[in-house]
Amino acid sequence: MTDATLQDPDFAQTAHALLGDRGFTSDPDLLDPWLTDWRGRYTGRACGLASPANTQELATLVKLCGKQGVAIVPQGGNSGMVGGATPGRSGNEIILSLRRMNAVRSFDPESKTITCEAGMVLQTLHETVETKGMRFPLTLGGKGSATVGGLVSTNAGGTQVLRHGTMRAQVLGLEAVLADGSVLDTLTPLKKDNRGFDLKQLLIGSEGTLGVVTAATLRLLPQIGTRIVVWAGLDSIQSARRLLLHCEERGKDALEGFEVIPSHSLDAVLDHLPAARAPLADRHAWYALIELVSDRANDTGLAHLTEGMLAEALDKGLLADATIAANETQAEAFWLLRDSISAAERAIGPAMQHDISVPVDRMADFVEQAIEIVERKFPRCEAIAFGHLGDGNVHFHVLAPPGADRASWEAQDAKEISAFVYDLVTQWGGSISAEHGIGQDKVAIFEQLGDPIALNVLHKVKQALDPDGLLNPGKLLKA
Amino acid sequence: MTDATLQDPDFAQTAHALLGDRGFTSDPDLLDPWLTDWRGRYTGRACGLASPANTQELATLVKLCGKQGVAIVPQGGNSGMVGGATPGRSGNEIILSLRRMNAVRSFDPESKTITCEAGMVLQTLHETVETKGMRFPLTLGGKGSATVGGLVSTNAGGTQVLRHGTMRAQVLGLEAVLADGSVLDTLTPLKKDNRGFDLKQLLIGSEGTLGVVTAATLRLLPQIGTRIVVWAGLDSIQSARRLLLHCEERGKDALEGFEVIPSHSLDAVLDHLPAARAPLADRHAWYALIELVSDRANDTGLAHLTEGMLAEALDKGLLADATIAANETQAEAFWLLRDSISAAERAIGPAMQHDISVPVDRMADFVEQAIEIVERKFPRCEAIAFGHLGDGNVHFHVLAPPGADRASWEAQDAKEISAFVYDLVTQWGGSISAEHGIGQDKVAIFEQLGDPIALNVLHKVKQALDPDGLLNPGKLLKA
Repeated sequence: MTDATLQDPDFAQTAHALLGDRGFTSDPDLLDPWLTDWRGRYTGRACGLASPANTQELATLVKLCGKQGVAIVPQGGNSGMVGGATPGRSGNEIILSLRRMNAVRSFDPESKTITCEAGMVLQTLHETVETKGMRFPLTLGGKGSATVGGLVSTNAGGTQVLRHGTMRAQVLGLEAVLADGSVLDTLTPLKKDNRGFDLKQLLIGSEGTLGVVTAATLRLLPQIGTRIVVWAGLDSIQSARRLLLHCEERGKDALEGFEVIPSHSLDAVLDHLPAARAPLADRHAWYALIELVSDRANDTGLAHLTEGMLAEALDKGLLADATIAANETQAEAFWLLRDSISAAERAIGPAMQHDISVPVDRMADFVEQAIEIVERKFPRCEAIAFGHLGDGNVHFHVLAPPGADRASWEAQDAKEISAFVYDLVTQWGGSISAEHGIGQDKVAIFEQLGDPIALNVLHKVKQALDPDGLLNPGKLLKA
Repeated sequence: MTDATLQDPDFAQTAHALLGDRGFTSDPDLLDPWLTDWRGRYTGRACGLASPANTQELATLVKLCGKQGVAIVPQGGNSGMVGGATPGRSGNEIILSLRRMNAVRSFDPESKTITCEAGMVLQTLHETVETKGMRFPLTLGGKGSATVGGLVSTNAGGTQVLRHGTMRAQVLGLEAVLADGSVLDTLTPLKKDNRGFDLKQLLIGSEGTLGVVTAATLRLLPQIGTRIVVWAGLDSIQSARRLLLHCEERGKDALEGFEVIPSHSLDAVLDHLPAARAPLADRHAWYALIELVSDRANDTGLAHLTEGMLAEALDKGLLADATIAANETQAEAFWLLRDSISAAERAIGPAMQHDISVPVDRMADFVEQAIEIVERKFPRCEAIAFGHLGDGNVHFHVLAPPGADRASWEAQDAKEISAFVYDLVTQWGGSISAEHGIGQDKVAIFEQLGDPIALNVLHKVKQALDPDGLLNPGKLLKA
């Protein structure tokens, strides 16, 4: 097997005959853009790029791949964080894109559901349902490229999980092609169905290792009528935790998001985005970005509730200062500060990112202690944490010492730092992957730190459903 | 193997030595009450009743059973509807009761969770969390005997699913003993955890065929402050559907339950319960039992909302008449009418009960058409439907002709009727088991009408995790 060429020329010919010009290519120039993950950490090889037009074509392709021993790497928007959609090095894999399968199959305003194909991009989904007066309650930074199939396969999170749950909570039904080429269809949106354990749940979050999701029935909500976005200054992460509890109690179901941002991250964003301005005049150790929504337009009740909630929090000393976005433009500006943290940190220099969770009520303690321990253990590095406090999920970044050489730092120190952070999280009863998945990035550390009993079950199920390792080999679990 | 005796006396001795007098018995008199399901439809045989004191004892017992080829039938409150907790006829099975494992392991008011052992009875769970000012948002008729382990293993439903989901939605973490005696522990309540596909989801609803649930971390809600219960009279099931949509739109998150009851069922209940009274003066073709709740005490806003919602419904012709329960006693009396339907129907004569679901927006059409088709096909039988319209789940009962002999009717006509009903439901894209599970009652019909692809996957997973068929053989799937 040499670079991006086929051992068995029959495979490419047969695949091409099956899928046509638009459906299959093994042209290295056309393959190249999809061989590297968007963060540029992994580059693999592939003997083809398949883009079937429909589920039946995909089912036939999967059977062909099975016969010829060619593995399949499903790739959605190629916006994953852990190399889960990037092929390995063998060259005996094809990349599978469902870009041509992006249709809305049905929309039901009464039951508030949409059934769409896996290739639909998240932003298109948002726009599609908005024209119908509805909304899809999950969003994230990569919404312009992330696809429904990828979101389901990775059980994606985002900034609305606090109120609405992860992708798992949005999926009412699935269609998927399994490793033997059979099509599992659970698209009928039954609210209650106890015919056996729930196979749809097994596919959600399986990162394309058990089946290829081809369509999903998703739940929708009424469109947002009123949105209130608050930027608050806090003296500590412990205050943030107390403020969160206060907001949950007072805001109830209106509380849609609660993100925390350390001063370091805000500074970095303000340096990075010249047009951006700090929402508050004074500097604070931490900031909270809080969103409350109502599906009634001009809901003055929500405004009153928010004002009362903040006044009480100020009285109780839970926050030092706060400002409410005056309009949608300002609300978007507040969110842009939050959404630009990763890019701003990246501009400063190399850093290791860790997407971790611990039980919500331990998160503040964890952040305080982990930052101290990591900075003591790795002098001259800076540790920062930001993100979804309300979900017990922060992005824990460790920045290289100023002036460090990226390549050598990433090759050595960074690996040691990550191992240390993951060990620490595991000691705290947490997860080394809160929302990004395992992909190829965390396979080794997962096998090392994961519960051996859980790993054993994962391997058994994988073996049962994909005995030949046809689907996304080497992702989530060791091949 | 003869009646309830052991082929291998070593097994009983070893099990007894392991679990002690309180933990193991093979005394036929002590076994007898647990050999028959509570509806009296199935009677099996067992070579022992095991009641381990803790998870470790159970893990050791499972390994022993594996070695000696003795199968394990987990039994919670023995209140299941499909014989899922009743042993088969081989006699080479033990009944496993977790009645001694009923402790609260931890309670966390801040994260609103409780971790309790599987043997805890649902009513005890309700009472336990009520003393802490919280509530557990799932209830059903068998709450006085149903256990947490049984509720998880069957993904139980009940009358609050409309707002809060089935048991699956309440479970944040699980502990379970697997077929090889290993203990899977996912009790750490992480809100977000994407380390592999979710094994907890696999165990929920697996009816004890993949593992024995020994403990669960469950989500709690603030206690109900105000409850409003409405009894409405309607002219048709189509009106009920329109009324449901209206209540969902107007009641929003306050809408906790929406049950429908046909006049026949109310008549039967009023005959059955001499002290009961009809909530409305006039007779209507259908009734809706509607519950709205708020966690604020004396929430006058909820009262106004309900009154406005009903007035508008009356204006729109969605209901003919309605009454709001004046106090808690009356609210309980309304619910008692609903909860007594099964008992009242049983007192009239033999009937076949079908726990079915179709997509919510098709349920009214289904009920109308199915009643007509079934009554035409089986003259002199009466078909009735009642239950959880808001979940697309009704209990579809077909009553034997007046004066029919129970034994001969159940042996012949009843089987034909059920097969017909299940065929019809399947044609409508529905489920032959909405909330009761498959157990032993529906194994054959599930294998016959179920999606062969889904069945194939279920069998593969079962084979992978329990290759020797140790756990609840012959339930959910053919042994």
